Amino acid sequence: MAPLKVTFLGPAASFSHQAAVETFGDSSELIPCVSFADAIAAVQKGEADYAIVPFENSTNGSVVQTLDLLVDRNGIYTDVEVCSEYYLTVHHCLLGRKDLIPASPRDYSSIVKLYTHPQAWGQCEKFLAKNFKGVERQDVSSTSKAGEVVLKTDTEINAAIASRFAGEHYGLEILEENIEDIANNTTRFLVLKNVTSGRSELSFEATKTSSNQELPQAVSKTKKTLTSFMIRQDTLGTLADALLIFKEFGLNLTSISTRPSQIQAWKYVFLVESECDQDKDVVPAIMERLREATENCRHLGTWANQLVSA
Amino acid sequence: MAPLKVTFLGPAASFSHQAAVETFGDSSELIPCVSFADAIAAVQKGEADYAIVPFENSTNGSVVQTLDLLVDRNGIYTDVEVCSEYYLTVHHCLLGRKDLIPASPRDYSSIVKLYTHPQAWGQCEKFLAKNFKGVERQDVSSTSKAGEVVLKTDTEINAAIASRFAGEHYGLEILEENIEDIANNTTRFLVLKNVTSGRSELSFEATKTSSNQELPQAVSKTKKTLTSFMIRQDTLGTLADALLIFKEFGLNLTSISTRPSQIQAWKYVFLVESECDQDKDVVPAIMERLREATENCRHLGTWANQLVSA
Repeated sequence: MAPLKVTFLGPAASFSHQAAVETFGDSSELIPCVSFADAIAAVQKGEADYAIVPFENSTNGSVVQTLDLLVDRNGIYTDVEVCSEYYLTVHHCLLGRKDLIPASPRDYSSIVKLYTHPQAWGQCEKFLAKNFKGVERQDVSSTSKAGEVVLKTDTEINAAIASRFAGEHYGLEILEENIEDIANNTTRFLVLKNVTSGRSELSFEATKTSSNQELPQAVSKTKKTLTSFMIRQDTLGTLADALLIFKEFGLNLTSISTRPSQIQAWKYVFLVESECDQDKDVVPAIMERLREATENCRHLGTWANQLVSA
Repeated sequence: MAPLKVTFLGPAASFSHQAAVETFGDSSELIPCVSFADAIAAVQKGEADYAIVPFENSTNGSVVQTLDLLVDRNGIYTDVEVCSEYYLTVHHCLLGRKDLIPASPRDYSSIVKLYTHPQAWGQCEKFLAKNFKGVERQDVSSTSKAGEVVLKTDTEINAAIASRFAGEHYGLEILEENIEDIANNTTRFLVLKNVTSGRSELSFEATKTSSNQELPQAVSKTKKTLTSFMIRQDTLGTLADALLIFKEFGLNLTSISTRPSQIQAWKYVFLVESECDQDKDVVPAIMERLREATENCRHLGTWANQLVSA
């Protein structure tokens, strides 16, 4: 079998790249894209088997660009469905060139400049205050980019804040690990497939086995379902009624996102995620009821819950 | 009476500034702040009577920073409540220096560079493609800033894309109005007050009269209520049950936002907006029921619906 093709938001060594490697293994063909839209379009067109995209972060919430692509207002990703999820804990490391900074004895006094994505400074504040007070900081477009810049600079001694994955990708020294203030800052990725492609006959579980990766086991006996719909605004209580359908069938609502429909101001598309036991097969019945109660209702996928409960 | 103090996100001539002027009039003391947090904190501390902050845009959706301030995870804005809303339609104009570009005859051929906020380019694509193909574009931090830069430049002929309000603020020529592609791109602002301040005894309606402004009339006979809560995740259907309370009392759910609680990963705060007839007085009863069914439930305000229905 030809290797699986998987798209993700680049550049190389991004957190999406890491999620792709940890989900699909190195034997798959991992294809960096310049936008989430390109990553998903490749799956719709059958140019890739899967896309892996961030859906939400435990600290910052939903990734709005992904929500909007799933809402698919122009109906261009009609064959794309969610088939799995992957939780990636965000850890930051201090990285430097092996030839310029010795890992031991640990001495940061020669470092004159630090590079990272603007968001990462705030996530490592305690470590930076303790070790790099007054040291110049330079924003770059991604933590991965920070690693690349440091690798390419030999005129002065710099360090990057990025993932261990990025450090290994660029062959940099991991000077210090887990320098983030917030423990358990986790991003949930969704895996998207094309429901009409021949490859989609492979279940995601089979894929995992074939790539021979040590992948997270389904630790929960539940599955999740994502749906989107608009409501008829002329009738009172329509949204509550639509949401009640999930309860009627024993599904637990876990999150609801509201996005502009862009058809009419203040008319919304709702994205509803729900959870139920693995062995329950009620999604078709729910969709039938939702189609009666809402407008433009769509089933965006059902997949095994991968969250380890606390 | 001392003039009302109203905070908004600066700089001067921003869309928030325009919303503040149109809501409170020039006779109020309008105070630009460097962040939404500063604008709201001033109301909490009693240093300002009102804050006006953007809540959602009809094209781009919720303003996440405002949602997070209303969620108020650290309980620092406990006396702040929503008391009104204001709808501002976003119009863009082409602005230039009066001494450098004549308004008539209309001739843009001398303009060598355009300035605006990155988001505005996309909103005026048709106009730009028709009139400014190949002309250099320079991003700035706000449309208001674009006006300021153009005003201060006399070494070459530039133009800004910004609001009429910004044009008038900087004394620039309005070369062309309503150059945006999307009609009805509207931002909804919320007006926040301090419930404990002496000034809060003034109802918002009274304020409007006293500032003698021609303000939008309540065109709807309905009022809106915003609440936030977390749910007990150990019981099935808790979110659906909480949402059903609104329906039971005849309130229509209009939008639901999900934000991370930041207490525990994947535990959420829900912000629920609902609507009911002006003369209904059910909010206290709903809050009582919500307090039983949810955690950390909070009433964030009830105010007259200002939306003109289509």
